[in-house]
Amino acid sequence: MAAGLERRVVRTLRVAPGEPARLGRRDTDWFPGPDGMSKSERKAAARDFLGSYVEELSALQEVLYASDRYAVLVVFQAMDAAGKDGTIKHVLTGVNPQGCEVTSFKAPSSQELAHTFLWRCMTALPQRGRIGIFNRSYYEEMLVTRVHPELLEKQRLPYGPERPSFWDDRFEDVNAFERHLDRNGTKVVKFFLHVSKAEQRKRFLARLDDPDKHWKFNSADLAERGRWHDYMDAYEKLITATSTPWAPWYVVPADHKPTMRAMVAGILVSTLDALDLSWPDVDPEEQADLDAARKALEAE
Amino acid sequence: MAAGLERRVVRTLRVAPGEPARLGRRDTDWFPGPDGMSKSERKAAARDFLGSYVEELSALQEVLYASDRYAVLVVFQAMDAAGKDGTIKHVLTGVNPQGCEVTSFKAPSSQELAHTFLWRCMTALPQRGRIGIFNRSYYEEMLVTRVHPELLEKQRLPYGPERPSFWDDRFEDVNAFERHLDRNGTKVVKFFLHVSKAEQRKRFLARLDDPDKHWKFNSADLAERGRWHDYMDAYEKLITATSTPWAPWYVVPADHKPTMRAMVAGILVSTLDALDLSWPDVDPEEQADLDAARKALEAE
Repeated sequence: MAAGLERRVVRTLRVAPGEPARLGRRDTDWFPGPDGMSKSERKAAARDFLGSYVEELSALQEVLYASDRYAVLVVFQAMDAAGKDGTIKHVLTGVNPQGCEVTSFKAPSSQELAHTFLWRCMTALPQRGRIGIFNRSYYEEMLVTRVHPELLEKQRLPYGPERPSFWDDRFEDVNAFERHLDRNGTKVVKFFLHVSKAEQRKRFLARLDDPDKHWKFNSADLAERGRWHDYMDAYEKLITATSTPWAPWYVVPADHKPTMRAMVAGILVSTLDALDLSWPDVDPEEQADLDAARKALEAE
Repeated sequence: MAAGLERRVVRTLRVAPGEPARLGRRDTDWFPGPDGMSKSERKAAARDFLGSYVEELSALQEVLYASDRYAVLVVFQAMDAAGKDGTIKHVLTGVNPQGCEVTSFKAPSSQELAHTFLWRCMTALPQRGRIGIFNRSYYEEMLVTRVHPELLEKQRLPYGPERPSFWDDRFEDVNAFERHLDRNGTKVVKFFLHVSKAEQRKRFLARLDDPDKHWKFNSADLAERGRWHDYMDAYEKLITATSTPWAPWYVVPADHKPTMRAMVAGILVSTLDALDLSWPDVDPEEQADLDAARKALEAE
């Protein structure tokens, strides 16, 4: 394990609370290795790191489960083709599914639209001892609805974005919600997989070239790509307003998938490490019970 | 309908945000009628009011449902034998159950204890167009757990009441949660049914005298009665801290049941009235559809 490297990644990618996210100035191809690494060297190094982080994560998740003190909520947000699904697959395959649940949020159902925008995520919160992954989340309600405010009509809200505080009110609600989670033992960590517009173009073209990937392409994705600048603006405001001491955002460079996955895994390891988890102690009384059980079994 | 009377009840019983609740100075037998009414006159007047409020409530609930814009969340909290169950029964019988759901919160299950203290109430929130009744609620988490802090151990929290801000943190979380509901169309109204210790004694004795009511008596209730002062202190702090412009507390005198029920019903009518609900408009296009449907049916 390279704790120094993890610390450098965490420090570089974490958006400091109260500071602007400055997405436009962040290199979508940054990586923490030495200059002058070739692409293939970089790929090999990233895969090595990913492998060892996944092992650590699997071990940490077992202690998280056994110690039964904290839950962890991991939020993934990104533009299309940034690699959310692949990252979840590569980082969390190897973790016991009994202690880890992924919820993907797509367009809300009519029952979901009949509740407040946080509700469907509230019902999906992980219980103590578990890692909950949100593939998209309530943050969509400050992204897609900000770019397409007509979507808000289905929520039949008392007031909409015509009120100047509308988006800030949502940020405030979300910050308070996450603070409540943190105070009560659910650690929240949020990833924005930061892909460049040029890299998205390449990936969309690759999807069109490969019949096996056609299912992943939707012509509506192209329309959203046309609103790239609006989305970046919405992300900038959102990440700036909701990166808090209790629920930080990490902006992870996403142009190089192996690097991105390794960095996400490293940040998760570092987050779980910071919980300072330990296997539950067996007190003398419990130890006596265990000793008695052993005796009874041996005497059979 | 007596709108002036309702306004007087609302004004008298509502705890002004930022003001102390002053439970000790509130008359648990107050009623809004003229002085010198006999008990039987008072009972008859209260029943008349209750009857007409229940009719209004039933009509308002239909518009709430049809207009599909707001939800209403009604929280009931009280000491034992204050009359929560009877009030819910008398005030809401007559309202279409399709638009009204009651959730009673008892001791939390192990699954509920594995989530934050707001979680089980989050999952039970009413959807748009509905009235949700909470018979007890997340407020228990600042009442029974404050009187019996050892109950908090099951929540395995990162920090407990040894941190001076612990209870204030819970109040802050609850206020933010209710503000989120209000901003997104769920109106919250909260009732504390305020019974005197002497009246509780009378009602407990009546339960012991009547075999049909034995099931309602639990010897643990007596132990809680022994902590009366601690509960009143917890209620005082809680109501003072969480009566907000968006989710007010009403302290309803509970020594006279018919009066209490009429006042609760009147406050609910006034709350729904203030939403200024109306039947959904039929726009010209929809009207054309309706006309065409009529024609088709008539031509059959």
